[in-house]
Amino acid sequence: MKIVELKESILENNDADAAVLREELKGKGITLINLMSSPGSGKTSTLLALAPYFEGKLSWGVMEADIDSDVDACTMEAAGVPAIQLHTGGMCHLDADMTRQGIRAFGRDDLDMIVLENVGNLVCPAEFDTGAALNMTILSVPEGDDKPAKYPLMYETCQLLVVNKTDTLPYFDFDRERMERYAKACNPDIRVFYISAKTGEGVAELAEYLLAAVLQKEA
Amino acid sequence: MKIVELKESILENNDADAAVLREELKGKGITLINLMSSPGSGKTSTLLALAPYFEGKLSWGVMEADIDSDVDACTMEAAGVPAIQLHTGGMCHLDADMTRQGIRAFGRDDLDMIVLENVGNLVCPAEFDTGAALNMTILSVPEGDDKPAKYPLMYETCQLLVVNKTDTLPYFDFDRERMERYAKACNPDIRVFYISAKTGEGVAELAEYLLAAVLQKEA
Repeated sequence: MKIVELKESILENNDADAAVLREELKGKGITLINLMSSPGSGKTSTLLALAPYFEGKLSWGVMEADIDSDVDACTMEAAGVPAIQLHTGGMCHLDADMTRQGIRAFGRDDLDMIVLENVGNLVCPAEFDTGAALNMTILSVPEGDDKPAKYPLMYETCQLLVVNKTDTLPYFDFDRERMERYAKACNPDIRVFYISAKTGEGVAELAEYLLAAVLQKEA
Repeated sequence: MKIVELKESILENNDADAAVLREELKGKGITLINLMSSPGSGKTSTLLALAPYFEGKLSWGVMEADIDSDVDACTMEAAGVPAIQLHTGGMCHLDADMTRQGIRAFGRDDLDMIVLENVGNLVCPAEFDTGAALNMTILSVPEGDDKPAKYPLMYETCQLLVVNKTDTLPYFDFDRERMERYAKACNPDIRVFYISAKTGEGVAELAEYLLAAVLQKEA
């Protein structure tokens, strides 16, 4: 499994660079998904739960960004999903240039979809356009229903909100309506899915939505 | 309840500035604790659980840093703990200068202890010395036992690690020994407490430790 040490971008206009990368990827038929969340919300386990639904329908791979471990990329590869580990060298987010470095090192222009698992952080990654076609965030039930009120930019920039660990709803005071009210105040069009990556609840619906979003784009 | 809009520091040497602030606070007999964690680990609820143990023994207050909500400061004040809300204006962490701005606006030189509840983020806050006498981090059980392996700098810079939400241990695959092994690889001297802010388990021991740490310094 390949590990890439990313270099900090020297480009000054990340938004322009991200727009260029987005066009490049569109030209190659690759849908890039930027997956963001707090540490421990279940980014990797959600991808593992989705994997069986993509089999035979979609070719995909994962770029795992981390400060310096390689646990997640190893986990994805063990599950048969092509993966590459990106080390940010302490950086708290990825920008478009760092994402491009990762995609080049991955060297898989044949994929329909690449998921960039961003650094676990609700603040900084939301500020940097990576060039992704779709921004997706995971909020796990134990984190609490008030997160969209406290970290609004994350929810403004995401089209997709996946609420994970629904199997733990009985043990936490998590009010779905309140959470959705906060999230929709940030972004009225945000699409919300409830899943448990552990039990599999709701994963089929999320997989179906992602398959349609990615394959439709190719049609 | 006062809300302070913090300005980004223009000082170049944060470490030097933090050392100066630490000495200033020592001179005033104030112990500053920098409390850090992922979003939703339970920083505010841990402080609420500690509050009754400090009553009559310690005068203290809380500075709640947040991107732009004021939920936490209101919660603390409602519980009778002096609190001030610091808005970081999108910034993902506090440095020593921002901390000083907060302390000045708080204007409570009579307190034994001020807890700075940093922005929910395991990455950036660990990089900036705030001038605190003690760095404390909370890891909640649902986040997983691998967090110290993934966010090592946080555990290197903290003297105190509080594992919260122990009441949910039966529902998560959280291996205490593995977590402690990872944490001690970052910092062999890190002190670990296990608590549930919800049920109160372990809170008395943590309170006792903090009381001793703060009052001893005054003696």
